[in-house]
Amino acid sequence: AQSSVTIYGKLNIEAGKAVATTDKTLLDVAGSRLGFKGVEDMGGGLKATFGIEHRFSPQDGQANARFWNGYSTVGLMGDWGHIRMGRDYVVGFLMVQNQIDPFGGDTQAALRGVGMLQGGARVRYNSQIEYHLSTNGFNLAAQVADSTNNGGNDNRAMAFAANYAAGPLFVGLAYENGSAADDKQISLGARYNFGFATLSAGYSKGTTAANVDGKGYLLGANIPFGAGDFKVGYAVGDANTAVAGNYKKVGVGYHYNLSKRTKVFADYAKVGGTDAIGPKTGYDFGIQHNF
Amino acid sequence: AQSSVTIYGKLNIEAGKAVATTDKTLLDVAGSRLGFKGVEDMGGGLKATFGIEHRFSPQDGQANARFWNGYSTVGLMGDWGHIRMGRDYVVGFLMVQNQIDPFGGDTQAALRGVGMLQGGARVRYNSQIEYHLSTNGFNLAAQVADSTNNGGNDNRAMAFAANYAAGPLFVGLAYENGSAADDKQISLGARYNFGFATLSAGYSKGTTAANVDGKGYLLGANIPFGAGDFKVGYAVGDANTAVAGNYKKVGVGYHYNLSKRTKVFADYAKVGGTDAIGPKTGYDFGIQHNF
Amino acid sequence: AQSSVTIYGKLNIEAGKAVATTDKTLLDVAGSRLGFKGVEDMGGGLKATFGIEHRFSPQDGQANARFWNGYSTVGLMGDWGHIRMGRDYVVGFLMVQNQIDPFGGDTQAALRGVGMLQGGARVRYNSQIEYHLSTNGFNLAAQVADSTNNGGNDNRAMAFAANYAAGPLFVGLAYENGSAADDKQISLGARYNFGFATLSAGYSKGTTAANVDGKGYLLGANIPFGAGDFKVGYAVGDANTAVAGNYKKVGVGYHYNLSKRTKVFADYAKVGGTDAIGPKTGYDFGIQHNF
Repeated sequence: AQSSVTIYGKLNIEAGKAVATTDKTLLDVAGSRLGFKGVEDMGGGLKATFGIEHRFSPQDGQANARFWNGYSTVGLMGDWGHIRMGRDYVVGFLMVQNQIDPFGGDTQAALRGVGMLQGGARVRYNSQIEYHLSTNGFNLAAQVADSTNNGGNDNRAMAFAANYAAGPLFVGLAYENGSAADDKQISLGARYNFGFATLSAGYSKGTTAANVDGKGYLLGANIPFGAGDFKVGYAVGDANTAVAGNYKKVGVGYHYNLSKRTKVFADYAKVGGTDAIGPKTGYDFGIQHNF
Repeated sequence: AQSSVTIYGKLNIEAGKAVATTDKTLLDVAGSRLGFKGVEDMGGGLKATFGIEHRFSPQDGQANARFWNGYSTVGLMGDWGHIRMGRDYVVGFLMVQNQIDPFGGDTQAALRGVGMLQGGARVRYNSQIEYHLSTNGFNLAAQVADSTNNGGNDNRAMAFAANYAAGPLFVGLAYENGSAADDKQISLGARYNFGFATLSAGYSKGTTAANVDGKGYLLGANIPFGAGDFKVGYAVGDANTAVAGNYKKVGVGYHYNLSKRTKVFADYAKVGGTDAIGPKTGYDFGIQHNF
Repeated sequence: AQSSVTIYGKLNIEAGKAVATTDKTLLDVAGSRLGFKGVEDMGGGLKATFGIEHRFSPQDGQANARFWNGYSTVGLMGDWGHIRMGRDYVVGFLMVQNQIDPFGGDTQAALRGVGMLQGGARVRYNSQIEYHLSTNGFNLAAQVADSTNNGGNDNRAMAFAANYAAGPLFVGLAYENGSAADDKQISLGARYNFGFATLSAGYSKGTTAANVDGKGYLLGANIPFGAGDFKVGYAVGDANTAVAGNYKKVGVGYHYNLSKRTKVFADYAKVGGTDAIGPKTGYDFGIQHNF
């Protein structure tokens, strides 16, 4: 029976200090996880797929309040694409917003939230049905979700995303319309591997469920060095385009790969802008192990 | 170490509408699950067994409030039978009540609850000890449970069940007496595989912990067709035999097996009777994957 | 992917009656568990390690409120030692306090809590960093933990432990200083295998976070007999050395190994002293299966 289940996961802990706090403690921004997944080849090109992913806090052993917070889906896959039902990432997050940050949303220096998630973006939907198609370097996706299971009262949430990856180039574009009356967001981003470095840039703009406009952008670079890479980036988020005030963040770090599955890292972040409250700097020294 | 643990599970999601509601959403009646179990052969015909089974909602990634809601037992097994301790199904549910519904309790068309669980039936006991013996097609079981861990104040809960399966025939009979002063139930059922169809019939009668009498019956058929089967059934439940009023349900469905482990299905249900409140119909289109 | 994760666990249930209660029910003192762990050999003598261990109650299928209550760590290991970060046992508990009780903290007859954990001892720390070195039979460990994640307001919690095992001899010594202003504890213990029996003795002394002094001692014996061993021990704990009053416990049991992984056992305990409230005796008959 074991052959039908793959167990995987990530243990990530960093010692450091988060931006806007003073406590020096253990942190986990990357999101430690334990997952179970499988693909059944049913013949004729048809496959059944499933996956469930738990998130937890390794510092104190607490499970996420939503146990399978990562995702939980079952689906069918063929040459015609992949349909999945359940809880999953919003396709715009998966295929665009999460592709631009040089830190990938990890560590105290993560820039994704500041630059790419402004407006009505959400990371995951409950009770959603999604369709994915990959062909000739293009990845296309559309999804619709139940309104009552996603905090809204009015509409079924919907999202669309497309990206293209070929050789050194990645570009992506996404649109999402949440279940509340007003929330929506557009995001776009690109990466190019120049060899000496991969440079990335992204932009997001939208309106929250509380009808507040926001926009943000992100510029980043991954610079290979030794068995690791330097990461550096800058992001600005403006949570209300009608009122003066924004949030700026600079992040730098070096991530050293001990193996394909394990790395150690050190990062530094500094924030500014009128919306930055409390201590302006953060840093960490950590280890991430994938299994 | 892996050889001593088997991981198994089920991912089930249907898009549809439940009886008595108006919301069209994702549902999971079958009970998605993740289990860990094992059997250790200790020589001389003696085996140690264990199993723990988690239940969750794949639509939103929420774990059941009782995490190992399915069951959690440890036991010893030999030619003399199988003793298990822990949380487990009531033997009457496992060996009789769950054997008669052509839908097996799954989908919006499930009939088990209406026809087979009237009176003081419970699905599981906590802190129970059970004994199972299988011989010559007969399966016999008895169990006793702690009263304070099963919601009652008076008695240790007890249950007895027997069934017989040989060729096309299955018959079963169960009696249970819950931990409260009044709750008890008797259930019986039979199935016969006529080749063109398996027909099933069952009956339940008992008294709840609130001293309310109830009774129910169920008639069903599984009709093989192509790589799947049509399921059809009718059940009536009368939750209080002293007062006019009952609940009737018709269920029909077609379940198509994509493989031994994966099926897609469509079902329709209609309810009636004086106890049926709200919208009378339900339906679903779903996928179930077992691993 | 499976090769990078080892799944292990323990299912333990005993039927019996706990000291200080009257309810005859199912119990689990040993702590049933499910764990996931792995070691990655990264070459050059360097290894990455991780482990997460869930605790649950098999009697009723409830997860511990802190899901990964056992431990959850990630670390690096080499000839120079082993560094781990996350939630883990206090090293004094792991290396000294838990090594002396002939019952290992299991069953109604467990003596560990009475004799070895008096004063300011804690079993686990959150958000801790620990260092372990094993060389020539010596095991040395030091750890420091974040104060705000361990219930205290003042200090980072710290603990140090050392033990030595060679042939029939084990000796250990530990000191810990909790995160509150006053809590601290010293513990020491020894075991010697005389062949006909392993005799053990331990002592603990310290001050709780509420500034109450306490001390305790424990004497025990494991006597091999057939495929199992008789266990017998006596422990005294005095929770406030300034006030008359203490708690005494005698425990006896026979644990019969059905295999290397599975045992059945029967135990009896009697408590006394001015701090013993309610029924004085406890007993159990149980099964423990490790996988």
